[in-house]
Amino acid sequence: MDPEFLRELERASVKIEDLEEVAYKNKEQARHIKNDYLIIQNNKELQLDPNYYNLSRIEQIKYSARKFVEFITFDNQRQNVNEPQTIMNMFIQFPFSFPSGVHQVMFVPCIKYLASDKQCKDWLPRIYSYEIVGCYCQTELGHGSDVQSLETTATYDPETQEFIINSPTPTSTKWWVGELGIWCTHAMVFAQLNLLGKNYGVHSFLVPIRDIKTRKPLPGITVGDIGPKVGFNVKDNGFVRFNNVRIPRENMLMRYAKVSKAGIFSQPGNAKIGYAVMLQTRLAISCFFPRTLTQALNVAIRYSILRKQFNDSSNQERKILDYQTQQEKLLIPLAEIYGILISSYTIWDLNDDLLNRVQKDDFSTLNEMHVVVSGAKATWTETTLYYLEQCRLACGGHGFHHYSGIPGMIQEWKPMVTLEGENTVLHMQVARFLLKQYEKAMKGLNIGFSVQYLKQASEFLGSKLENVNSVGELRNIEVLRKIMIASAVFAIQNAADKMLKHVSDGKPPKQAWDEYAGIDLVEASKAHINLFTMNNYVEFVHRQTKENVKNLVMKLCILNAVSRITQKPYLLIENNYLEPKHFTFLTQLRDEMLLEVRRDALPLVEAFGFQDSQLRSAIALTSGKPYETLYDWAKNKNEMNNSYFAEGYEWIQKMQNLHPKL
Amino acid sequence: MDPEFLRELERASVKIEDLEEVAYKNKEQARHIKNDYLIIQNNKELQLDPNYYNLSRIEQIKYSARKFVEFITFDNQRQNVNEPQTIMNMFIQFPFSFPSGVHQVMFVPCIKYLASDKQCKDWLPRIYSYEIVGCYCQTELGHGSDVQSLETTATYDPETQEFIINSPTPTSTKWWVGELGIWCTHAMVFAQLNLLGKNYGVHSFLVPIRDIKTRKPLPGITVGDIGPKVGFNVKDNGFVRFNNVRIPRENMLMRYAKVSKAGIFSQPGNAKIGYAVMLQTRLAISCFFPRTLTQALNVAIRYSILRKQFNDSSNQERKILDYQTQQEKLLIPLAEIYGILISSYTIWDLNDDLLNRVQKDDFSTLNEMHVVVSGAKATWTETTLYYLEQCRLACGGHGFHHYSGIPGMIQEWKPMVTLEGENTVLHMQVARFLLKQYEKAMKGLNIGFSVQYLKQASEFLGSKLENVNSVGELRNIEVLRKIMIASAVFAIQNAADKMLKHVSDGKPPKQAWDEYAGIDLVEASKAHINLFTMNNYVEFVHRQTKENVKNLVMKLCILNAVSRITQKPYLLIENNYLEPKHFTFLTQLRDEMLLEVRRDALPLVEAFGFQDSQLRSAIALTSGKPYETLYDWAKNKNEMNNSYFAEGYEWIQKMQNLHPKL
Repeated sequence: MDPEFLRELERASVKIEDLEEVAYKNKEQARHIKNDYLIIQNNKELQLDPNYYNLSRIEQIKYSARKFVEFITFDNQRQNVNEPQTIMNMFIQFPFSFPSGVHQVMFVPCIKYLASDKQCKDWLPRIYSYEIVGCYCQTELGHGSDVQSLETTATYDPETQEFIINSPTPTSTKWWVGELGIWCTHAMVFAQLNLLGKNYGVHSFLVPIRDIKTRKPLPGITVGDIGPKVGFNVKDNGFVRFNNVRIPRENMLMRYAKVSKAGIFSQPGNAKIGYAVMLQTRLAISCFFPRTLTQALNVAIRYSILRKQFNDSSNQERKILDYQTQQEKLLIPLAEIYGILISSYTIWDLNDDLLNRVQKDDFSTLNEMHVVVSGAKATWTETTLYYLEQCRLACGGHGFHHYSGIPGMIQEWKPMVTLEGENTVLHMQVARFLLKQYEKAMKGLNIGFSVQYLKQASEFLGSKLENVNSVGELRNIEVLRKIMIASAVFAIQNAADKMLKHVSDGKPPKQAWDEYAGIDLVEASKAHINLFTMNNYVEFVHRQTKENVKNLVMKLCILNAVSRITQKPYLLIENNYLEPKHFTFLTQLRDEMLLEVRRDALPLVEAFGFQDSQLRSAIALTSGKPYETLYDWAKNKNEMNNSYFAEGYEWIQKMQNLHPKL
Repeated sequence: MDPEFLRELERASVKIEDLEEVAYKNKEQARHIKNDYLIIQNNKELQLDPNYYNLSRIEQIKYSARKFVEFITFDNQRQNVNEPQTIMNMFIQFPFSFPSGVHQVMFVPCIKYLASDKQCKDWLPRIYSYEIVGCYCQTELGHGSDVQSLETTATYDPETQEFIINSPTPTSTKWWVGELGIWCTHAMVFAQLNLLGKNYGVHSFLVPIRDIKTRKPLPGITVGDIGPKVGFNVKDNGFVRFNNVRIPRENMLMRYAKVSKAGIFSQPGNAKIGYAVMLQTRLAISCFFPRTLTQALNVAIRYSILRKQFNDSSNQERKILDYQTQQEKLLIPLAEIYGILISSYTIWDLNDDLLNRVQKDDFSTLNEMHVVVSGAKATWTETTLYYLEQCRLACGGHGFHHYSGIPGMIQEWKPMVTLEGENTVLHMQVARFLLKQYEKAMKGLNIGFSVQYLKQASEFLGSKLENVNSVGELRNIEVLRKIMIASAVFAIQNAADKMLKHVSDGKPPKQAWDEYAGIDLVEASKAHINLFTMNNYVEFVHRQTKENVKNLVMKLCILNAVSRITQKPYLLIENNYLEPKHFTFLTQLRDEMLLEVRRDALPLVEAFGFQDSQLRSAIALTSGKPYETLYDWAKNKNEMNNSYFAEGYEWIQKMQNLHPKL
């Protein structure tokens, strides 16, 4: 290990091992994951070739398929298979998506939950053995967030007992579907069910797409890859159009909706279980994938310790992490990501409880869980994206180089912000829930587990923050939590008032919602989720037993709260809740926390246990030596420096012809 | 033109032509540029193939070289050559860099200004005719912002009258140098000049790198491409190490620094002219390149008019631009970019004045221009990057697709944030200037043209905003300008106080600056530049004579000011300058402006005169039809849908072997 790193760890207030339960859900999980990372680190086959970003899309796709098979083979061999963990390990290990991710994470669970027992028995063995490779075919070119508007039709023909699948318009083309472009043999297609001239809404159908031997598209099907994207470039996101494609009646997924031979529709059981299943993908995106930010922070913080620029007062070059501006760039995201992770532990627990309940036909917590997960997805993916870019910029020129590892992390992370629900649409759904709950709370009715603070709402309206007359008095997580409750209450009240005002002015509620109150509604959702994070942070601090860990997490919690409160403080001002002096205290507190957390910056990122092969960074190896490594990779692992370019000089010859020497 | 666009233009308050002087510096320039765009639009050879983003780096490099030669040939033929305009047209037309950009924009001017008359006479004909292809070799692996610390040495050997160029350490490797990796024959190398054992600081030398016939590296030179990056991937950013490379004494650039045959150093003339030259690149980055945001906004606004999602109160699908949240995402950046452009017109004028002065040996405005341009570069590149990403996200899933055009714009724009000065370092330089000027102003001494407002500083300290008791009274650009002056004054005062406090506490000034006041110093710089923009905006409004244009620009100015003021309002609160009610007015004013500017959103982006081939977007053609075009490009212009993939299915076979059917 680089001696500078050793000195940093030496002078820190905590040891790396002390932070295991903070960085992961618990000690067991931390050790299991760290052990995985170590095993993977020792297997050269499972590491990314720095030349990867020079390749064409086709070469990258082939490369990722090879790595995928190597990963699965490796995992099978060590007889320690834990499927979700394997997928997460792959995601941490490589910055690109793999073939078969959608097949495993979306297609298989949908079949399991939405197909009847008989269908499962027929299909699952063929799916598990990769005879059937599936995809999840919902989004259309013209319809994303608004599922009820899908245009693809499935019309029942009682004579042949078949459904006829059609794409009636250009906008009905299925689009964005992962693993449809090249790989899949079958698609789970969402379509408007038409029975004897009547529409029965959107249902799902298993439609064969390609011949399982020749891999050629079947008759009536026009299918392909949609083209290059800003991330997920090795994913064959595809399009498909159906022209009178006939499938047997038995290919409709029949656990919760049935069509009889005669064409009679019925709905056995509760279709809501489908929502619970779909929630799992969104949950992974909000709760697992932000871990990419921990990788980027690990790179940026290591590099900021190794990189020195300009001299200090004693004429020594200063580590860039010792500049306050650099601390702001890296430690505020660090406090944020710990908040997200700590809150994600709560969400996983809530989700376990939900899955237990739905198996007993209890759907009472489903709606609120949907709201929590949607809000978390919208808020956390957005902040993660923003802070990933900040990590990149914090590495100066070298952050702009793929060899730093960060650009690849950002590129492959970007889809998360957009997929599984457009964030503004999700925020508006959260806001709708909040406004209803607020109304109930005002009437003294029962409200949901995630909005219990609304019971105190009336205490906050018209009140002021009392007894905070110094930075010292503000340096208290309960005081800061109180301010964040006030923020959330004011934001919800403000959105409710805005709606009320415009509706009283004669606007139809739909118009008021879309055209006049949108910004305030989104702010309400964000304030609510920020409070959710703060609550989890505070509870987590209270649960800590080791004094040094408790102290450090408390500092992170304070830094996160201060950063959140100062980001959009208008309502706290408009409501006279905070006085001018409080803002002076808030920025002073930020400065204090940056200096104090600085001391523990390295153990806080090392706690995640990433090995060099998981960081994939020439500027942040455990052994240091950023410049030597960059030089080595550029000179020896960059195909551009092979002899490819002889022919390339043609343009200079042409320029010479165009510009004769005078 | 799509009928929806026609209806939007019809109901707008301005015509596209009315905005020519707002979108460009003047009518002549606007017409010249728009005419160029139209000519280019009619030339298929000069358009980007949508398949471009599927290619490998090597293929992309060859592609860009081909397009470059086509562009130059085309421009030569039409006998209307205006070199800077050609380069800017190329940049607007293609989202990637071209070979020879550094040669033309940095290497040629440096030779012209830093080489002696004799050297120019010897070298320029060879340079103009592309016999010599040059690059600008300054940054080293270990040294970016801190030029004085460069390690490359040029040691004079009086016996042979040669300089010996050496890279003594890994950190001294020249790195990031554009056009060094593959193309250049010569490099302008910045190195520590050593004469008879004494160091004379950093100077520049013309060093041959490759044989001009064989293109092979010359003896003692290890050179190559540094590898893939997040943008500029077709640029051969390179590295080079020198091992006792001998060059003739005459290869030192000798206009402002000379070494005699005997090894005696002298400095004729004023070397400052070099800074004026270097300023030109930074100026282009701050004042020209943000125009990429106008392209992205043009795409996003056209798409937001074509895209409809969810029904309105009368059960019609609503254009997404009619949602308030979408207006916030797009119209606030629109107001920002117009502020940047309007301010850039002032900077171009100031620069013309500067160049006139320095030719008469008057360097009196150079330092302050350096500060203005540095601050503008740091502030505007950062906001442009942020808003480009916001445009992408505003296009939902389709913004994530390269066929929307926006990802390419962002990718190739990203380097601007980092190159030509790390933004935080630039802000700190601006802050240093501001603190000195503030001190002078407090003493009643003369201060610079860009900080005249500091003369009123004492009036603001301790004062309140008076006579603003309604939204109507706040809706006044002079009132908003006053608030922004207050913001800048408070920010500078706050940074000065912070420094004073920590120095009084016993910290060495350097430590106080780096470790305790950094964040506040950066804020001071940003507030100053924001005021600079506001001042230009306001003056521009006053100069308008057409009532409808004046009104519209005023609305943009108000929207921009409101967005700026509410972004970081603490100091306005801490200083009791604004009262709580003012924040209520500010957000109400934002809502009003969004609705009003919405009406003119389309003409405001169409004013830039981009043709479809400059937007390169399947979702924003003049003729509309986003879905049909996406489908056409995916199906017919995407090499992934050729028959490449037969061999690719191997992984499925392997997965079948790994998972035998049970």
